[in-house]
Amino acid sequence: MSDNRVEPSPAERDGALRITVLSDAPDGPPGIDRLREHAEIALAHNEASLRAALPGSRILVVTDFRTEALKAAWDAADRLEWIHATSAGVDQLMFDALIESDIPVTNAQGIFDRNIAEYVLTQILIFAKDSANNLAYQQQHRWVHRDTETIEAKHLLVVGAGSIGHRIGRLCRAAGMRVSGVARRAKDGDDVFDSIHAQDDLDALLPDADYVVVAAPLTDSTEGLFNAARFAAMAAHARFINIGRGAIVNTEDLVAALAANEIAGAALDVFETEPLPADHPLWDMDNVLISAHMAGDFIGWREALIEQFLANLARWRAGENLFNRVNKRHGYAPGGA
Amino acid sequence: MSDNRVEPSPAERDGALRITVLSDAPDGPPGIDRLREHAEIALAHNEASLRAALPGSRILVVTDFRTEALKAAWDAADRLEWIHATSAGVDQLMFDALIESDIPVTNAQGIFDRNIAEYVLTQILIFAKDSANNLAYQQQHRWVHRDTETIEAKHLLVVGAGSIGHRIGRLCRAAGMRVSGVARRAKDGDDVFDSIHAQDDLDALLPDADYVVVAAPLTDSTEGLFNAARFAAMAAHARFINIGRGAIVNTEDLVAALAANEIAGAALDVFETEPLPADHPLWDMDNVLISAHMAGDFIGWREALIEQFLANLARWRAGENLFNRVNKRHGYAPGGA
Repeated sequence: MSDNRVEPSPAERDGALRITVLSDAPDGPPGIDRLREHAEIALAHNEASLRAALPGSRILVVTDFRTEALKAAWDAADRLEWIHATSAGVDQLMFDALIESDIPVTNAQGIFDRNIAEYVLTQILIFAKDSANNLAYQQQHRWVHRDTETIEAKHLLVVGAGSIGHRIGRLCRAAGMRVSGVARRAKDGDDVFDSIHAQDDLDALLPDADYVVVAAPLTDSTEGLFNAARFAAMAAHARFINIGRGAIVNTEDLVAALAANEIAGAALDVFETEPLPADHPLWDMDNVLISAHMAGDFIGWREALIEQFLANLARWRAGENLFNRVNKRHGYAPGGA
Repeated sequence: MSDNRVEPSPAERDGALRITVLSDAPDGPPGIDRLREHAEIALAHNEASLRAALPGSRILVVTDFRTEALKAAWDAADRLEWIHATSAGVDQLMFDALIESDIPVTNAQGIFDRNIAEYVLTQILIFAKDSANNLAYQQQHRWVHRDTETIEAKHLLVVGAGSIGHRIGRLCRAAGMRVSGVARRAKDGDDVFDSIHAQDDLDALLPDADYVVVAAPLTDSTEGLFNAARFAAMAAHARFINIGRGAIVNTEDLVAALAANEIAGAALDVFETEPLPADHPLWDMDNVLISAHMAGDFIGWREALIEQFLANLARWRAGENLFNRVNKRHGYAPGGA
């Protein structure tokens, strides 16, 4: 092993690297046997089992993006050198002691981008082509002709101009839409976005958008970003799409804006509370499309996540820089054009 | 007027060109007042009123693509020089005496292409993202996570490589699919299609397609083209999409193929009998998406059709060649790359 940060133990030289895998699945994530080809795997499911597994582990793989167990068991991480999260968002993983530590955190940036972009385009087209009403009329055996909207030259505002936001913008631009981006700070436009505006300018941008999609990470600066004032600033014909995190939206304000026809529709894959409670008013609202936090989850994604980690593990073993390193203060991995 | 084919009468020199408009709407098509700015308009709705309107008319505009009145009233067309159909398909308009006459027929090629392409991409994405089940679970307030298909690199076979087929191929290629075309005869590939195969080779092409879309006109060589043997040749995971004409498909064979899971789904905008009868088995079939012959009908299409005719009328008045001339024997306008 060429890893020069810590002198490998004799066991490690023989390949007995210890990796803790924190998973909500009893047998661990699909593909965990692929990991066992490369390291000794300790499986943990909660604070107690994580506390038992961490001592001696140099790497922690977190496959449950909702977990807060690491914060509770942090004192047991005696040899930890690297944490990898098999999700794009790492908001629930972060806590002050981890942020302040030298331990790098990597994420699954890139894996979900293409499928999320397809999901967003699907929802835009379902709105434009009135497809939900096609299905409703079909259930009633009713032949009801309507004229429908085209998406050509319609304006999509992508809030969050990172890896996922760029992939959304690229696909929707290819499909004939105009796309603009919003990031923490204004940047020059690129081959995807006509322009990338600062989040502080969002209120001035919203009225011109036909579709607004949230592709931002959940951070202090995006939590609650879409509130009553933001929905009021949107055009009455505009639709709102959230594939980021539920807490970026004030759900009560969204329900009120939809009920008051301040916006024309919403497609939601993420929610403040997941699963969305069965008695939540969103389920029955017209022009709302609900999916179960699955926008990124293409067939084969679990296996793809394992392969992505193994590629980074090879870099770690070779003493090379890890890819997809998360800026722990900002809560996401930079880049993504 | 520079039209040199027929000596204009004094009334015509004054602008009193007579145009008959055959329409199923009592007041004629939306935008007919735009026509009245350019000519004297005689409105007809059926064989009798068409017979009364045709004498003296040099142009006939047919806005009802299902009509067969012209064949019946043909002997009253004493001065007819040009027939324009405000539809892409002209199959029901054609009859032997018209085909054998020197009277050119033009159609609405181009107007519907973009919206039809968006409709096809919408249906492909609805299949891939399992969106119909999202809506079903939403009605039941159920949070059901599934992994879904991506369309990236999936193979779309476009049967009918004309204007509409090219637009479908262009959009789906831009969205990341592989696209191939089928035409009457094999041609070189172009910037849309990897290759354009002959219709005679269809059976060899079908097994490799993930999606098959019919964008062909209804002609003698396409009528009943998709029958039991063709559906049996398709892959079990493949979906069939028809935006051409219903009679290109043997509907009983399609129902049987769907019921036997020989293909995985169908999205149908056109049917052998329209409206689709309320008791037809297609309405209730799983994985069937039905719409009411509306794939091309974007908001504003009627006005766009009038403007397209007026652009051709300006050419006619100037003695120039008409665009969108239909090959009356083949039943469609050539070109469309």
